[in-house]
Amino acid sequence: MSVEDHLLRIPGPTPIPPSVQQAMSQPMIGHRGTETKQLLQRLKPRLKQVFGTSQDVLMLTASGTAGLEAAVVNTVRPGEKVLVLVTGAFGERFAKICDNHNLNVIRHDVEWGKAVSTDVIREYAEKHPDIKAVFATFCETSTGVLNPVQDLAEAVHSQTEALLIVDGVSAIGGAEVKMDDWGIDVLTTGSQKAMMLPPGLCFLAVSPNAWDVIEHNSSRPFYLDLVKYRDKLAEDSTPFTPGLSLLMGLEQVLNRIDDEGLSQVFDRHLLMKEMTRAAFREMNISLLTSDKDASPTVTSVQPANFDPEALRKILKTEFGLDLAGGQQHMKGDIFRIGHMGYCSPADVLQTISLIEIGVHKLSSGTTEPAYGTKAAQKIYLEWK
Amino acid sequence: MSVEDHLLRIPGPTPIPPSVQQAMSQPMIGHRGTETKQLLQRLKPRLKQVFGTSQDVLMLTASGTAGLEAAVVNTVRPGEKVLVLVTGAFGERFAKICDNHNLNVIRHDVEWGKAVSTDVIREYAEKHPDIKAVFATFCETSTGVLNPVQDLAEAVHSQTEALLIVDGVSAIGGAEVKMDDWGIDVLTTGSQKAMMLPPGLCFLAVSPNAWDVIEHNSSRPFYLDLVKYRDKLAEDSTPFTPGLSLLMGLEQVLNRIDDEGLSQVFDRHLLMKEMTRAAFREMNISLLTSDKDASPTVTSVQPANFDPEALRKILKTEFGLDLAGGQQHMKGDIFRIGHMGYCSPADVLQTISLIEIGVHKLSSGTTEPAYGTKAAQKIYLEWK
Repeated sequence: MSVEDHLLRIPGPTPIPPSVQQAMSQPMIGHRGTETKQLLQRLKPRLKQVFGTSQDVLMLTASGTAGLEAAVVNTVRPGEKVLVLVTGAFGERFAKICDNHNLNVIRHDVEWGKAVSTDVIREYAEKHPDIKAVFATFCETSTGVLNPVQDLAEAVHSQTEALLIVDGVSAIGGAEVKMDDWGIDVLTTGSQKAMMLPPGLCFLAVSPNAWDVIEHNSSRPFYLDLVKYRDKLAEDSTPFTPGLSLLMGLEQVLNRIDDEGLSQVFDRHLLMKEMTRAAFREMNISLLTSDKDASPTVTSVQPANFDPEALRKILKTEFGLDLAGGQQHMKGDIFRIGHMGYCSPADVLQTISLIEIGVHKLSSGTTEPAYGTKAAQKIYLEWK
Repeated sequence: MSVEDHLLRIPGPTPIPPSVQQAMSQPMIGHRGTETKQLLQRLKPRLKQVFGTSQDVLMLTASGTAGLEAAVVNTVRPGEKVLVLVTGAFGERFAKICDNHNLNVIRHDVEWGKAVSTDVIREYAEKHPDIKAVFATFCETSTGVLNPVQDLAEAVHSQTEALLIVDGVSAIGGAEVKMDDWGIDVLTTGSQKAMMLPPGLCFLAVSPNAWDVIEHNSSRPFYLDLVKYRDKLAEDSTPFTPGLSLLMGLEQVLNRIDDEGLSQVFDRHLLMKEMTRAAFREMNISLLTSDKDASPTVTSVQPANFDPEALRKILKTEFGLDLAGGQQHMKGDIFRIGHMGYCSPADVLQTISLIEIGVHKLSSGTTEPAYGTKAAQKIYLEWK
């Protein structure tokens, strides 16, 4: 089956809208010319809205992990104490980056599939009043948990002097975020999730408090030095050659978001979450996360009666439907569905109807898809 | 909602595969240069397979109706007697073209939604032994009927001296056809149906008997003169400037068909037909055509309890799902679903699940979509 016949429903990379592909196919332009300057000028105010901030959103030509690393190395120095809230593989990644930079890492681990409780901030604040930064994951892509970032920010700022640094990958563009109002100090995401672009860009926004810390950090790195990006973006420019095609695509992504309306975009993601969760509940197949902790962009499913890897294989082979498996110790235990970015309720229905067929096959027909799609599925299953 | 968010499920034009779009975006080439010659050389043998013929398949730069007109004006002369089998709007079109060219038209009308019976050939052959050509529609797009062309060919050739001329639009590329084995004399289709291209090309294949008639026809037209196309194609060329982008796309269409396998392509269309029909049967919504007469590429649905136009409007507004309405006297009585070309069983399931939602809304919730998709649909319906 050709890739163009595939249905990409992993939690990123996500499908690219054709109009975005077209925008990225425009002729190349000079990165120091008027066209690039004007493009950056146009992008700046529009990105702020998506992040819920009045700060400029920096655009780095690198994948999402570079955004996490930039958030770490600009805000804290080797030896400084940080609290990392680990709710899954991407919390782990923050911890690894902090270790790599020889920070004094206090690590709080939460069972995968659950959100972090804001109560823990008080405990750590009391034991470690010298914490410089708290690192949290907004949507934990490995489990589909949406951590309560707004409440975390309130707890961090009321009980510590630390900055709150948030990995917004797989959330920003799909889940509502109010960086300024909530009090997030650094917020970052990659281009290939709810932002509907190929991988290759990451975005960072920084609060005035965090800028103050960053400016006083004498050990900032070179390529990931956020001050360089900030100062150049103030002049509608970039410190290094930017991924111009991706920036051209980004403009069309923002056109799409404007056309739909940002609040409608967020509402659509909530709807897709509820549709997905309701379907599995009805099928008596367990969800990894509670309703309260669930992300609008990713749903993890933890079936008791069949092998998630076998389901993924059937769906890939028969329909070209790409679902994600579990990561690390959850491999073989869960599967994950991405419903973000260029994805609609109609796509969710399609995904569910295909999963029903896969589950039916794996259950030797003991589960019963029903009514309309049921009948169509029956034909499919009985097809020679 | 932007067009790129639409789901095009009308019986043509149909969605274009991205790889075909890409192929059509290649740089322009000279129509008398080596590249065009080599392209035509490559296309020739591959098109024959799709038509089930050893004859060259002519490529005319024009829409499907020009293919019908070419079939008429090359094979018969003003005043000659022809039998036109009219099973819907496209049989009508053949009759209109014949009238326009001052033929002596014997018209056999069949109730819309039913296939023509091969028995009628004997009746007309006895009454009108001087019939020069019989015109039939393979898939009647306006009703979703697939006429029994193989049996018609046998009846025509055993009982008359007439040529059998078949409109294959909306069938060729989706429904199996064996032009040579069945004894079709002229077979034509457009590019925008199961051939997965934009409109703008039509294809015609002609039997040796029909060529004999055409060569002796002194009143052939200019642009639609099939002899010109045949003679030029024999030299890997065209009489007039061809739609080069469409020809580039056609090569990729044929790559796709080869990759899937032509028999698998036909099988997929049969599967999509059966899935669609089963769904409506289960929903107790009447189908216009009988199982025996149904086309693998188009399904017409004739609901008793709701207005098809209201359903189409809901689906278009909420999901960007494009279904076709009825034509002429069936307007407001039926709706039509295209499931051909770049369309998969997964797309059919999606279409059905969306129609379920639409029907549910129109029935004030008295119909009950079910299990899995049912639950997801319930969330959708109750969403604020």
